[in-house]
Amino acid sequence: MKNIQRVGMLTSGGDAPGMNAAIRAIVLALDSSVEVIGYKHGYNGLINSESIRLTQSDVDNIIHLGGTIIKSARCKEMRTSAGIKQAVSTLIKDKVDALVVIGGDGSFNGLLAIQEHWAGQVIGLPGTIDNDLDGTDNTIGFSSAINTAIQAVDKIRDTADAFDRVFIIELMGRHSGHIAFHVGLASGAEAILSFENTDTEHPEQVIDSLAKQVKQYQNSCNNSFLICVAENLWPGGVTQLRDQLNRYDFIDASACILGHIQRGGAPSANDRILATKLGVAAVEALKGGMSGFMIGERYAKPILVPLLDAIKHTKMVPDHLIQAHKNIKAINPTKIDNL
Amino acid sequence: MKNIQRVGMLTSGGDAPGMNAAIRAIVLALDSSVEVIGYKHGYNGLINSESIRLTQSDVDNIIHLGGTIIKSARCKEMRTSAGIKQAVSTLIKDKVDALVVIGGDGSFNGLLAIQEHWAGQVIGLPGTIDNDLDGTDNTIGFSSAINTAIQAVDKIRDTADAFDRVFIIELMGRHSGHIAFHVGLASGAEAILSFENTDTEHPEQVIDSLAKQVKQYQNSCNNSFLICVAENLWPGGVTQLRDQLNRYDFIDASACILGHIQRGGAPSANDRILATKLGVAAVEALKGGMSGFMIGERYAKPILVPLLDAIKHTKMVPDHLIQAHKNIKAINPTKIDNL
Amino acid sequence: MKNIQRVGMLTSGGDAPGMNAAIRAIVLALDSSVEVIGYKHGYNGLINSESIRLTQSDVDNIIHLGGTIIKSARCKEMRTSAGIKQAVSTLIKDKVDALVVIGGDGSFNGLLAIQEHWAGQVIGLPGTIDNDLDGTDNTIGFSSAINTAIQAVDKIRDTADAFDRVFIIELMGRHSGHIAFHVGLASGAEAILSFENTDTEHPEQVIDSLAKQVKQYQNSCNNSFLICVAENLWPGGVTQLRDQLNRYDFIDASACILGHIQRGGAPSANDRILATKLGVAAVEALKGGMSGFMIGERYAKPILVPLLDAIKHTKMVPDHLIQAHKNIKAINPTKIDNL
Amino acid sequence: MKNIQRVGMLTSGGDAPGMNAAIRAIVLALDSSVEVIGYKHGYNGLINSESIRLTQSDVDNIIHLGGTIIKSARCKEMRTSAGIKQAVSTLIKDKVDALVVIGGDGSFNGLLAIQEHWAGQVIGLPGTIDNDLDGTDNTIGFSSAINTAIQAVDKIRDTADAFDRVFIIELMGRHSGHIAFHVGLASGAEAILSFENTDTEHPEQVIDSLAKQVKQYQNSCNNSFLICVAENLWPGGVTQLRDQLNRYDFIDASACILGHIQRGGAPSANDRILATKLGVAAVEALKGGMSGFMIGERYAKPILVPLLDAIKHTKMVPDHLIQAHKNIKAINPTKIDNL
Repeated sequence: MKNIQRVGMLTSGGDAPGMNAAIRAIVLALDSSVEVIGYKHGYNGLINSESIRLTQSDVDNIIHLGGTIIKSARCKEMRTSAGIKQAVSTLIKDKVDALVVIGGDGSFNGLLAIQEHWAGQVIGLPGTIDNDLDGTDNTIGFSSAINTAIQAVDKIRDTADAFDRVFIIELMGRHSGHIAFHVGLASGAEAILSFENTDTEHPEQVIDSLAKQVKQYQNSCNNSFLICVAENLWPGGVTQLRDQLNRYDFIDASACILGHIQRGGAPSANDRILATKLGVAAVEALKGGMSGFMIGERYAKPILVPLLDAIKHTKMVPDHLIQAHKNIKAINPTKIDNL
Repeated sequence: MKNIQRVGMLTSGGDAPGMNAAIRAIVLALDSSVEVIGYKHGYNGLINSESIRLTQSDVDNIIHLGGTIIKSARCKEMRTSAGIKQAVSTLIKDKVDALVVIGGDGSFNGLLAIQEHWAGQVIGLPGTIDNDLDGTDNTIGFSSAINTAIQAVDKIRDTADAFDRVFIIELMGRHSGHIAFHVGLASGAEAILSFENTDTEHPEQVIDSLAKQVKQYQNSCNNSFLICVAENLWPGGVTQLRDQLNRYDFIDASACILGHIQRGGAPSANDRILATKLGVAAVEALKGGMSGFMIGERYAKPILVPLLDAIKHTKMVPDHLIQAHKNIKAINPTKIDNL
Repeated sequence: MKNIQRVGMLTSGGDAPGMNAAIRAIVLALDSSVEVIGYKHGYNGLINSESIRLTQSDVDNIIHLGGTIIKSARCKEMRTSAGIKQAVSTLIKDKVDALVVIGGDGSFNGLLAIQEHWAGQVIGLPGTIDNDLDGTDNTIGFSSAINTAIQAVDKIRDTADAFDRVFIIELMGRHSGHIAFHVGLASGAEAILSFENTDTEHPEQVIDSLAKQVKQYQNSCNNSFLICVAENLWPGGVTQLRDQLNRYDFIDASACILGHIQRGGAPSANDRILATKLGVAAVEALKGGMSGFMIGERYAKPILVPLLDAIKHTKMVPDHLIQAHKNIKAINPTKIDNL
Repeated sequence: MKNIQRVGMLTSGGDAPGMNAAIRAIVLALDSSVEVIGYKHGYNGLINSESIRLTQSDVDNIIHLGGTIIKSARCKEMRTSAGIKQAVSTLIKDKVDALVVIGGDGSFNGLLAIQEHWAGQVIGLPGTIDNDLDGTDNTIGFSSAINTAIQAVDKIRDTADAFDRVFIIELMGRHSGHIAFHVGLASGAEAILSFENTDTEHPEQVIDSLAKQVKQYQNSCNNSFLICVAENLWPGGVTQLRDQLNRYDFIDASACILGHIQRGGAPSANDRILATKLGVAAVEALKGGMSGFMIGERYAKPILVPLLDAIKHTKMVPDHLIQAHKNIKAINPTKIDNL
């Protein structure tokens, strides 16, 4: 078993609920003789040599806290060789044996860069609400984000219902539709526009199909109509889509960008457990001498995924979920088109 | 005691959590021999003669539901004499003895108009999240809206904290700052921009003062900085304010419009109780032959407020609250200006 | 204006959400030159001389946290003259000019005892979920407790509804029914048993009346039936009441003690604002040389209430609330009795 | 493809959040020409021939509702051949082609019994908060229950923290520790007592080990100490355990039975999605002529599990989760014992 005396840790990129739970699990799973150094504000902490000691009592009661106690940030300097050298130099100065980074694919790029210039072990944990990391069924933060989002959408449903209105809701997700799709399904949204199922090269057809669905709804049950849209998908965003739909005189549409509430708040039960399992597994991997891996979750168990594989592709929404969505006719645009 | 056999009811204007609790209280407080007719979609239900019977079992288990089971809407026709006549004609046709309207000032204007042409009793209940109705300490829906908003702002605080970022959050409220102020105070926002305390005729001074505060924060504790802004206050909205603040190179600001989540969701305990008290009092008032009043709450007790008085002024945020805000130096712009 | 250089603070008795918001408001409202000493674990901190300095950055981001950062406890020694002397001796040793205590009536007894032996100023803030302190419309923690409770009762309503079951729910409150009554009203409980409206000297009559109500419900709408009961009211508690009701063959009753969830969690918007207003007012009172008062809230404004008056009586549920409850027939035992 | 014209549906046994989402998915996934008959109150609806038609508009907006719109119940008569015959006779009278039952293992026993006497198709969906059904990774309701429970435990943590107290919390689960274990892990409980890891035949050793842990905690960080206990595990329940721990003079323990809040409330995102996926898959299975299966979820995809296999064993908490728990030393009794 590898003799590890100092472990460096940092949270990088967009913050995600559950990051603190992961930090806690790593610190508690390590022997109390191991020094844990938390670098602050993501990789900036390595570059600026800004860190704090993390002891058991620092992490004892943080499992339910959103955010990250060692802060997070994006770090452009980590794309420069000067920045990478500076980061490595801090690790050497601080006599760090292993570095654990909790973040998304951008963060893993940083890890790979460091690995080229440093002899210590590097391990990554998937921390991002977007759930777009390949090799892991779920990323830390995803479950919390969709639960926060559905609670918000449930409230929007109330007011949309009161007014028989069309509401277009933008969900986060960067370039995949995991949040949009899961939230759409879970809130019974009448339509979901996501990268996996929307042809944005023919926006007029999409608009036309949506308008037909709204009309059919008004004819049958006169209720609300919610459209969940993945951010970055629609040219001009949801405000543009709203304007396009409002050209139809029978449509009264409003737009809502859920925004950063999706990134905060107490983590869900699933995220706390996922973060804990992966943190514990990260320590096992370190003790076993592993380096260059992301600890992912596959079929509810932790697995080692080479960092390069984790960032190679953006994981997209799986087919069986898109299929389930189509089978519930209330939200099936193609079926309506066939009328 | 007045002999009332049929009571008409409608919810009008922006929906507010607690409207259902008010509907429930009115139906349950009336004798079971009284017929309650719920006109749907606000005054449109009167104009289009669209209604449903409301019995005890219809309202028995709706106290915790957001929205309104008889829908709501804005109704431009109620500003025309043709529309008013049509509404009155429906009331006469349906043999209604008294009409109860739950809504904001626009809705009370409709009531007053109807009262001029109809012999039946008219009573209003203050239902709007904006809390801008004069004559009542609280409107039904206000407490729920601020609780929903602070839960959202708590989550934004997490991510702002993780990133040491400035977040500008827009709250609803039409032309008063009740929600912005209460949410700002309750979430510990570092700054609150509201109608009562912001000079929008000198925006550059406001921006400058905010920037100074942010700088002072960065120098002292390096945390997040939240600014709660009342909607309709700032020219160009919070996205414009964000751009203006981002011109300072030490500021990294994001904007967030909380939007319609503030209108939905299960009502808070206070709103359920307020709605219940006012609904019961409305029935007492009807039995006592009262007409032309809004049932408001003053010092926790129901009172009768002449409808004209209720809509004469927009109630603004009281001084003692603005003063309390100033006394907590962390959010006192003038103190900073004195540096 | 009084020259205050050191302020001691402690939270005592049952903890209540909003205590941290009050601590924050006091620290932020004081001049930064004033030293704030937080005595830990209630009066035990004074007796054992265990304290921490509270600075602005300690309290900056605690407004939304339940619990209390300086802990709380009951302290039997404060009922002994040796304990009081020890407490006073610590205040003198630490050169404290004024002591602020956030707690319930037990805590104010301690303040009065200290005042007899100490020249410094004493101020109390009403912090308890029970809302039984005379002289203030609301205590810090009450609003949060009832919101937490109604969310729990809403969930119980779901399962009671699914099963057409009778659920007896015990709410906290010591010897008054504020929580039971407000939660009962706000959750549409079919019955409320509280100190103010239940004759426990004739339990058989109460049981009989309840059974009749349940029967009437089953005949009319076949739904769930919730009974909110104040703790300490019923001999044998709610489990006993459950057994007594289950003797009727048409009744299937379950009991549920909500317990300590009512004491924790993020404070509601109202509690954060109340705590902030009262904290700011406490500092104003100290600067004005006041001593021997509780800062209460009356008609939404802070007022000074002599400590003796605050603890003289237990505040009971006001009549107009009990009356509102009776007027909604669904939960009116006497009306049923008249069948 | 099987020609199905009438589908019967019922929810049976303990209710679980997500049952409504499953009902909705099944109704919406079926052709609109198929008649769906919802039998009320579980199997009692079949025995008493009490049912309602379920159309698209009945289920359109129920995805977020806890409970079940067709009620649930336990039905002892389904263990008698007279009861089974009566149930089958109703199915024949109503010309039902297929019966879908959402419930736990007791409910599946009923399905198997019906299958022996009836030619129609039978399909089961796993609906119970206990997650103890073999053959499916998750049951509908489990995710919601643990999220509700951790929110409650987070509040208890606040008050336990304020008072440095030991809290013993009882979680539901019948005869397995899924809820206790997941909630314990997710809330950072210092100890978890469950069927899988506790030797109740030597209670004194368990008590002794717990007391040692509490002592170690008091020596190191003086915080709160939470113990999550599976219901039905400890003789005398958590109140007994509390009394046993309170014999140690350094321990101040309270007990809390979370109770039925774990069964209600709006379903979590995961449960809404799971219920939707399984409901859609159930309809696919019916169309494919399948009968005698439970639709489970394995590795996030729906699978068919023979009903007999689903009820053969009680699924227990998997080893890797128990191991993860041990590796976080803060909650590792055996490690403490080695001191």
